[in-house]
Amino acid sequence: MQAETTAQEDSGANAPRYDLRQIDCDPNFWYPVAWSRKVRPGKAFAARYAGQPIALIRPEYGPVYALEDRCAHRQVPLSKGVVDDKGCVKCCYHGWAFNQQGHCVTVPYLNREDVGRPVRAFPCREKSGLIFIFPGDPALADSVPVPDIAQVGNPEYKTRQFNPRLKCHYTFMHENLMDMNHQFLHRRQMGSITARFLGQDRGENFLEARYSFARTAGNQPLAEALIFGRHHDLEGREQPVEEVVSIRTTYPYQTLQIHDKDGDLIMDLWVCYVPLGETQQITQAFGLLSVKKPKWAFLLDLAWPALGLFTHRIFEEDREIVEMEQAAWRELGGDHNIEVFPVVRNLRTLLATHGVPNRYAQPLAATAQATAG
Amino acid sequence: MQAETTAQEDSGANAPRYDLRQIDCDPNFWYPVAWSRKVRPGKAFAARYAGQPIALIRPEYGPVYALEDRCAHRQVPLSKGVVDDKGCVKCCYHGWAFNQQGHCVTVPYLNREDVGRPVRAFPCREKSGLIFIFPGDPALADSVPVPDIAQVGNPEYKTRQFNPRLKCHYTFMHENLMDMNHQFLHRRQMGSITARFLGQDRGENFLEARYSFARTAGNQPLAEALIFGRHHDLEGREQPVEEVVSIRTTYPYQTLQIHDKDGDLIMDLWVCYVPLGETQQITQAFGLLSVKKPKWAFLLDLAWPALGLFTHRIFEEDREIVEMEQAAWRELGGDHNIEVFPVVRNLRTLLATHGVPNRYAQPLAATAQATAG
Amino acid sequence: MQAETTAQEDSGANAPRYDLRQIDCDPNFWYPVAWSRKVRPGKAFAARYAGQPIALIRPEYGPVYALEDRCAHRQVPLSKGVVDDKGCVKCCYHGWAFNQQGHCVTVPYLNREDVGRPVRAFPCREKSGLIFIFPGDPALADSVPVPDIAQVGNPEYKTRQFNPRLKCHYTFMHENLMDMNHQFLHRRQMGSITARFLGQDRGENFLEARYSFARTAGNQPLAEALIFGRHHDLEGREQPVEEVVSIRTTYPYQTLQIHDKDGDLIMDLWVCYVPLGETQQITQAFGLLSVKKPKWAFLLDLAWPALGLFTHRIFEEDREIVEMEQAAWRELGGDHNIEVFPVVRNLRTLLATHGVPNRYAQPLAATAQATAG
Repeated sequence: MQAETTAQEDSGANAPRYDLRQIDCDPNFWYPVAWSRKVRPGKAFAARYAGQPIALIRPEYGPVYALEDRCAHRQVPLSKGVVDDKGCVKCCYHGWAFNQQGHCVTVPYLNREDVGRPVRAFPCREKSGLIFIFPGDPALADSVPVPDIAQVGNPEYKTRQFNPRLKCHYTFMHENLMDMNHQFLHRRQMGSITARFLGQDRGENFLEARYSFARTAGNQPLAEALIFGRHHDLEGREQPVEEVVSIRTTYPYQTLQIHDKDGDLIMDLWVCYVPLGETQQITQAFGLLSVKKPKWAFLLDLAWPALGLFTHRIFEEDREIVEMEQAAWRELGGDHNIEVFPVVRNLRTLLATHGVPNRYAQPLAATAQATAG
Repeated sequence: MQAETTAQEDSGANAPRYDLRQIDCDPNFWYPVAWSRKVRPGKAFAARYAGQPIALIRPEYGPVYALEDRCAHRQVPLSKGVVDDKGCVKCCYHGWAFNQQGHCVTVPYLNREDVGRPVRAFPCREKSGLIFIFPGDPALADSVPVPDIAQVGNPEYKTRQFNPRLKCHYTFMHENLMDMNHQFLHRRQMGSITARFLGQDRGENFLEARYSFARTAGNQPLAEALIFGRHHDLEGREQPVEEVVSIRTTYPYQTLQIHDKDGDLIMDLWVCYVPLGETQQITQAFGLLSVKKPKWAFLLDLAWPALGLFTHRIFEEDREIVEMEQAAWRELGGDHNIEVFPVVRNLRTLLATHGVPNRYAQPLAATAQATAG
Repeated sequence: MQAETTAQEDSGANAPRYDLRQIDCDPNFWYPVAWSRKVRPGKAFAARYAGQPIALIRPEYGPVYALEDRCAHRQVPLSKGVVDDKGCVKCCYHGWAFNQQGHCVTVPYLNREDVGRPVRAFPCREKSGLIFIFPGDPALADSVPVPDIAQVGNPEYKTRQFNPRLKCHYTFMHENLMDMNHQFLHRRQMGSITARFLGQDRGENFLEARYSFARTAGNQPLAEALIFGRHHDLEGREQPVEEVVSIRTTYPYQTLQIHDKDGDLIMDLWVCYVPLGETQQITQAFGLLSVKKPKWAFLLDLAWPALGLFTHRIFEEDREIVEMEQAAWRELGGDHNIEVFPVVRNLRTLLATHGVPNRYAQPLAATAQATAG
């Protein structure tokens, strides 16, 4: 691959003023915090966004809602409480009750109305089997779309959910998926595969990179063959490109799509990396992997467990490596990455530009920018 | 219950100048640090008070004594050592020996007398099956009484010892027991019970609150019935008050007494919350629960295991909630409690007034006092 | 034993200006970081020196070499990578390859030569079954000798390797071995033994202390008897000195040698305490214990497992005590040792003089010197 070294690199104006691993997600987006099926009718559920505990409450009837997961009285989790028949949540400790707006409607042992203070309520939506909250300015929530996860519910696709927890900053995940030159990491699962970079596109809030793959040695894994069909490029014979893999970060979400030689979308992955802790160095990913059903759909059903195992193994390799990156960041006290691939440089600029500095972040000194850029 | 909102609230003069969770116990009291039975003749025992390691040493003959649990030589625990036939403790490492006053009486491999420095000795008393130390100014020890634990040794009562370790500041424990409006927490063990506040008394060093209980739904647990007799207030019928529960913090100790309708004391709980760590956010409780023997005392013996299980389950619910309060304090970086119940407000003032600020505590800013009060 | 209190104590000029537990090892020496057998041909191995991760790489052919264990690209460990047929190590993530000098020779997906930055290479030597690195100034490496471990490879001795990890600063280990007055610690393994101090020698970079031992009660352990022969000083009879134990710290290494009454070296221990973490409060010891074979060598072979168990038990007692010393240092926030034995005072000066202050160390205030000396 010829690196595009002359175009689309960071200009000085875009150079990050903060260490990328101290840039928080922009809270003014919709972030998934739980699977719908985990929050049962009449129950509360404990979720978390960037150090903020969130109680998700689903009344027996009516939509799920989200409150700060701390009682206004003594700060214990409302998610440990009881959902009453009016759809309010009663704190498990002294029974204070809060409604959908977070107002305290009952302090059971006092006759006064005005004693309980409210707790914060978060805009909350349910879509595609996920519960989303809007952690930023509530006034903006209605103007920001809840993301479309295109193939979920499309009967031509079969979809798998996954939500691993990763001990790393979300930006490592974006970089990992975007840079397909890391296939060397998966040599044990995939054999010898080399990515061929086909091009990139940029916009104000997105970056897309496209690749094809060539097998340079070894056999294609069965699970892979069942999805994509067999490749025929063993023994050094040059093969025409069959599939195109497109990875796209549309801030703050990421997708990976595979189109076959006819241009049909055969795989569609959607993923959102949700920060759990206040420093955003622990990430809860929510992913939906949709695979186009073949003519005989039962073949995909048959292959489904093997496909699950295959993707799990690949993912575990990615998890190990991104967590080692985060560990190195901690040991070194900052980001020492030397990035040479223009796509990743552009991605870093996109993430740095759209995110917001962590409350504990220190601006980079002029000297540090050179190495951390 | 009608809250007494017009009286006995904090005046401005009493407003806490420090976060209550950064107020240490006053060291100029007697604190239990071990059960007597744990410190066997001729042995040493490792205890701890507020980050200070304590070696309790019981010679073969003579009273137990308490030293700082660090050899003056190389600071390893004296409690790992050997008690010799003079009642001295020899450090396990190089055999330096210390007497009851903490003086180094032997450095076995040197012929000089003056080489070993002393270790600190703590005033130490044994009473009611507990070993107490006086962690403050030793000159005050004789003027401060070792607490009376009234029913221990009274043959009309049967007494159970318990000493759970809790990952929370001791003040959360005082508040938990004093505020009987938290019966909602124990709904799974106790059924639907509502506390009726009867009144409070205050003095310079104590606060007492009295309650009765009404069952609003469900059946009375068997273990409870065996102690108190059956209530008859199911099905909404108003019942006369049968027992009065009095909770009293007499600084720094706490008691809970239950008197039946005839004014007889049927249960008497004494508890002391001893800080273990330097920030006092880990607590070792020492409790003695005395139950009046019924006419046929064997009934209480029969019920004893069930009573133990019942109190254990209730206590575990309390433990979970106070540890969640402490966890919220850490996450929020301070005390955000909004207390509306005058008894607890008075209790907070009592604890803040009698305790001493932790060495790492920062005075509350004027703006913080409003929310943390 | 009569302490030599009048000579060889610290003069004011030598008084430590830093807490001894904040004095790092001088990096300008050769330190073992792995056993040779652990680094197999064609493989990489993760080691560590004072917080610095080290990749040891042994090509299929040619000598082992040492690189900083972080890829220049994304800082993940090179030791997780693949050793190629040119003897280079390829990073497991994107396949960047580095040679023996740490130069990046390949970035497989770019056609440019100059993109990869180098990683740091450490001088590396292999000797006596150990792999040594030189963590300090590489320009000095050739002028500093790799240590001789005298009896390794001597067919008259049988040698055991051991490498425990200890949660304490390396200086505690030097002091522990040098001060033979700590036999009281091993009373359960060794019975009642008393060390007799015979004298000491000092030089610019070494300190040696010599002792004999007298049994004051109990029986000699079998394993000990198999090595040294039986003592005959039971029942209070004064016995002639049979063996002399010499402990010597030749900075930064330490040895313990036992010579029998004829002056023959019957046991020779070599040990190096290698700091693992950045604060050097975790130590990886590498030790080689050589025992002279008796006339009938099979007797030693027979006794070997028992000898291993015996030394293991003694070592575990030492481990427990030095880790308690470190724990006390942390609790107290500094070194409070009151050392009265001149040999240990001299050893402390030797270690303080030859080491270098940790990057986080604060100079001792004048008042603190008195107690920490």
